[in-house]
Amino acid sequence: MTTQTLHVIGGGLVGSLLSIFLARRGFQVELHEARSDMRREDIDAGRSINLVITSRGLKALEQVGLRRQALDIAVPVKGRMLHDIEGQTTFVPYGQREHEVINAISRGLLNVMLLDAAETYHNINMHFDQRCTGYDIESKTLMFNERDEVQADVVFATDGAFSAVRRAMLDQVMNFDYAQSFLDSGYKELLIPVAENSGYRIEKDALHIWPRGHYMLMALANTDGSFTCTLFFPYEGEQSFAALQSRQDVIEFFQQTFPDAVALMPTLAEDFADNPVGSLVTVKCNPWHVGGQALLLGDAAHALVPFFGQGMNCGFEDCFVLDQLMDSSDGDWARIFEQLNEQRKINADAIADMAVENYVEMRDTTADPVFQLKKQVGFELERRYPDRFIPRYSMVMFHPEISYAEARRRSEIQAGILDRLCRGITEPEQTDWAEAERLLAEYLN
Amino acid sequence: MTTQTLHVIGGGLVGSLLSIFLARRGFQVELHEARSDMRREDIDAGRSINLVITSRGLKALEQVGLRRQALDIAVPVKGRMLHDIEGQTTFVPYGQREHEVINAISRGLLNVMLLDAAETYHNINMHFDQRCTGYDIESKTLMFNERDEVQADVVFATDGAFSAVRRAMLDQVMNFDYAQSFLDSGYKELLIPVAENSGYRIEKDALHIWPRGHYMLMALANTDGSFTCTLFFPYEGEQSFAALQSRQDVIEFFQQTFPDAVALMPTLAEDFADNPVGSLVTVKCNPWHVGGQALLLGDAAHALVPFFGQGMNCGFEDCFVLDQLMDSSDGDWARIFEQLNEQRKINADAIADMAVENYVEMRDTTADPVFQLKKQVGFELERRYPDRFIPRYSMVMFHPEISYAEARRRSEIQAGILDRLCRGITEPEQTDWAEAERLLAEYLN
Repeated sequence: MTTQTLHVIGGGLVGSLLSIFLARRGFQVELHEARSDMRREDIDAGRSINLVITSRGLKALEQVGLRRQALDIAVPVKGRMLHDIEGQTTFVPYGQREHEVINAISRGLLNVMLLDAAETYHNINMHFDQRCTGYDIESKTLMFNERDEVQADVVFATDGAFSAVRRAMLDQVMNFDYAQSFLDSGYKELLIPVAENSGYRIEKDALHIWPRGHYMLMALANTDGSFTCTLFFPYEGEQSFAALQSRQDVIEFFQQTFPDAVALMPTLAEDFADNPVGSLVTVKCNPWHVGGQALLLGDAAHALVPFFGQGMNCGFEDCFVLDQLMDSSDGDWARIFEQLNEQRKINADAIADMAVENYVEMRDTTADPVFQLKKQVGFELERRYPDRFIPRYSMVMFHPEISYAEARRRSEIQAGILDRLCRGITEPEQTDWAEAERLLAEYLN
Repeated sequence: MTTQTLHVIGGGLVGSLLSIFLARRGFQVELHEARSDMRREDIDAGRSINLVITSRGLKALEQVGLRRQALDIAVPVKGRMLHDIEGQTTFVPYGQREHEVINAISRGLLNVMLLDAAETYHNINMHFDQRCTGYDIESKTLMFNERDEVQADVVFATDGAFSAVRRAMLDQVMNFDYAQSFLDSGYKELLIPVAENSGYRIEKDALHIWPRGHYMLMALANTDGSFTCTLFFPYEGEQSFAALQSRQDVIEFFQQTFPDAVALMPTLAEDFADNPVGSLVTVKCNPWHVGGQALLLGDAAHALVPFFGQGMNCGFEDCFVLDQLMDSSDGDWARIFEQLNEQRKINADAIADMAVENYVEMRDTTADPVFQLKKQVGFELERRYPDRFIPRYSMVMFHPEISYAEARRRSEIQAGILDRLCRGITEPEQTDWAEAERLLAEYLN
């Protein structure tokens, strides 16, 4: 029996991990990446280089023996540090348990680690500078760099939020459901550099947030002592990218709005002028596959906005589920792809919606006392009923055994319960625990 | 001052009416149509040739003096005739007033009438066999038949649900929101021919519906005595297009399910085999325009499923609103397009959603006694409070002064009121009218 050749489009995080999963099962993997080998070039500047990896992503890495290596290049983050307009800070932990941390990790370092690991497989061939620019479904032909045709019986498209393979499906697949939806805000990356003593200028083990209602600033530690900051900001309006035209506009706005941050950002005006404004898109589509010949995975199937830090984690979980499905019907791609579509689509939709909802929570309500009260009552409910009541954030981040769709369903019920319990009280101690027990028994069985 | 040249892409219903509106204001209009001149060719078979024109569409036609001509080729339809599985019929009027009728009209005849009317304008040039295949926004260049380039400062794209101009915007406009969503059902057109005595075989002034839960058959009169029938039917499943493979499958299924219809359809098996299955798509996008240089209108901006008969009516209303906006800022296209987008997008979204909802109503609930009861109580509420309570169907069809968005908002409140009033009763006479008055005062002020 000849070895089947599989084509993976995109050597980003999901594509390189997927290649490893496929190679471990003995397939010949041809991995096509649009950019040069990042291990021989500078990593793109101005992109979202800081990610978080959480339980779902780690579970997939563990399956291929790379969990430890990933954690070695990550910075554990224990909670959110909220910065108010006077520079006062409040720390809100992500969870109540020791292990309930998320891990800040550099996109570039993780990608390099995955490519290095992929290279150890003799049955993975990597092709760099091969941008996929088209796919003809009928003839099973991939097009690279608008010029080179490659025959491909089985294609795994992990070519990201603006996937060329998905684009081909939009043109060629009958009744293809497709939606791309942009937020009214974009983002710009800024920098808090390493301190003079080569340390961190603010707490490294917190996700720093400056929530300001319709916009926010965020900062996440890098391993080198610096922080990557991200300003999420409307395109248009009174306070917006459009309104900050001059260097002075920028400095004044930051001084008024993020006074404690601006003091840590010596290159603010230059960074603001030089770095591009990125857009924030949600993509949903269906189906994710063309029979047994092509499958979309990761951002290509479901681009998420970054506010739950689950883009990569969801893509890695796709790979994990695909691997499980290969156990039961190894090589019957049509069946595997259909099952994957069936199992993962509802979950990708759920995390896509929760990510948009989390944007509102992060920029808007994290500074709100009612939000803080509900967080505390929620934690206490979790302490009392650890199997019944788990906060949404915890389910998504720390409970990979609960699917995204189930996490969304349960958290909506929980939000209703917290609404009722927190009405008319100001301290967690005032909670009516008998009522809580009754509500949980009624709605969360 | 030289006359400005405007390019209209698509000489269908909306494009030809729009050309007239623009020509009346003195612009030079270049109308580009993909197909041959339908007045010199046979009209496409197998397409949805039967439409309804209602108040919104008629209002736009009236503005250009074509209302009477349209009604002359239409068949008034007073209500729904529901056919149950035994062939028993129930008539449900659309409204309580004489003029509350909808008008069945042939797409082909109406299009011919509009093209003829457009031809009377010396400042409209019609170009047939010119399929728009691309649009370069930067250079303001239209591409026709993948070959011929035309410079175009101002483009009105009325090139339908699969618009090439919209496609170009999807590729070239930053942060373009786009969604296409297909129903799980498709449709197939069938025929009830003219009776032997050249009359109609069933009531001509009703929309005939055979509601069967997950699918339905519909019939609408043509002026020649025949009826165009449409089967709306799932693609897959136990009762579906996929399940009806042989001629005998089709005949048996129709005999069991639509026994009174099948008796009137002598060419059923041939029509079923010959006519294609059409898909049912909703398209939403935003923005509808590129500055002042291009505007999407009609299906190109908002394709609707046909279950409220509002695709054309909504497109005609777009033209009417555009014309009003030209009054206040004649020639400032950027401003006009932005205002149109602002005003019409929410309304197009509302009718798109209501059209999908109406599918469920038509195939599923029209045969239900509770549905009939609510209809009757609704009509009585309208009789008692004609300015406060107007059934959704009536608002959409007979009240163009109520926008689609407002019709949707009010009808959702009304549905809640009807739910409460009809709980526990079986006859309209049992309605608690004092409670009705109280609910209306509370929720519909």
